[in-house]
Amino acid sequence: MSGKLGVMAISDDNTGSAPCHRRSICGVACSLDLLGDKWTLLVVRDLLLGKRTFGELQASPEGIPTNILADRLKRLQAEDIVYKELYQERPRRYRYHLSAKGADLGPVLFSLLRWANKHIPGTMSVAEVQAMMEENRS
Amino acid sequence: MSGKLGVMAISDDNTGSAPCHRRSICGVACSLDLLGDKWTLLVVRDLLLGKRTFGELQASPEGIPTNILADRLKRLQAEDIVYKELYQERPRRYRYHLSAKGADLGPVLFSLLRWANKHIPGTMSVAEVQAMMEENRS
Repeated sequence: MSGKLGVMAISDDNTGSAPCHRRSICGVACSLDLLGDKWTLLVVRDLLLGKRTFGELQASPEGIPTNILADRLKRLQAEDIVYKELYQERPRRYRYHLSAKGADLGPVLFSLLRWANKHIPGTMSVAEVQAMMEENRS
Repeated sequence: MSGKLGVMAISDDNTGSAPCHRRSICGVACSLDLLGDKWTLLVVRDLLLGKRTFGELQASPEGIPTNILADRLKRLQAEDIVYKELYQERPRRYRYHLSAKGADLGPVLFSLLRWANKHIPGTMSVAEVQAMMEENRS
């Protein structure tokens, strides 16, 4: 496996818009290049739950530091996972939304949720989260 | 949602062996406390692919630094995601294995793989990875 991944990682095939910092052609490695930290997927989670403004995102219980939130929103926009919409001119205020690429991270979040629910005592069940999502939609 | 998560995060309910550094009762946040970095899930991936020794894990194309690999194996053992087996006495050599808790991360890896395969050009397909896993087994 190392061989295969290694050789293909060196060759610069038609990777289009792929990030130039890619460590290999493994999708897990490439995903982690974008998402592998303690905060990015929490921002995606919150957007999936319907939070829209910087203030709403900042108010999540994990207490994301302002500079980290600003940085993650910037990176997620650079990767077309998030886009922003101007909703107020003076002062300029934005709403953040997941793109289709971002919304496709839903299954990743649910797989983490299911794993946590099985193996980390006291975490919310998938059913509880889904009820919360329904509640936010209505 | 913040309210619910927040209140429950403060109360110290019967969380059993849950890590004391938990940021909230959200399973995504709790999972990221353990897995949220650029390397941990790659070690899990390699163990799932059948790599067993420190040397095999180190040889992966992403080039994990020795100190990070040692640290991640230690943390994964502390969380009962990985266990080690002594296979040679002099010098002492270990093989690493995924526990049931660790093997249950398979769906998380496949969800990242599917997302990458759809959205990051040039990454391996799920079918290619599955073929590689079959090859390693035989």
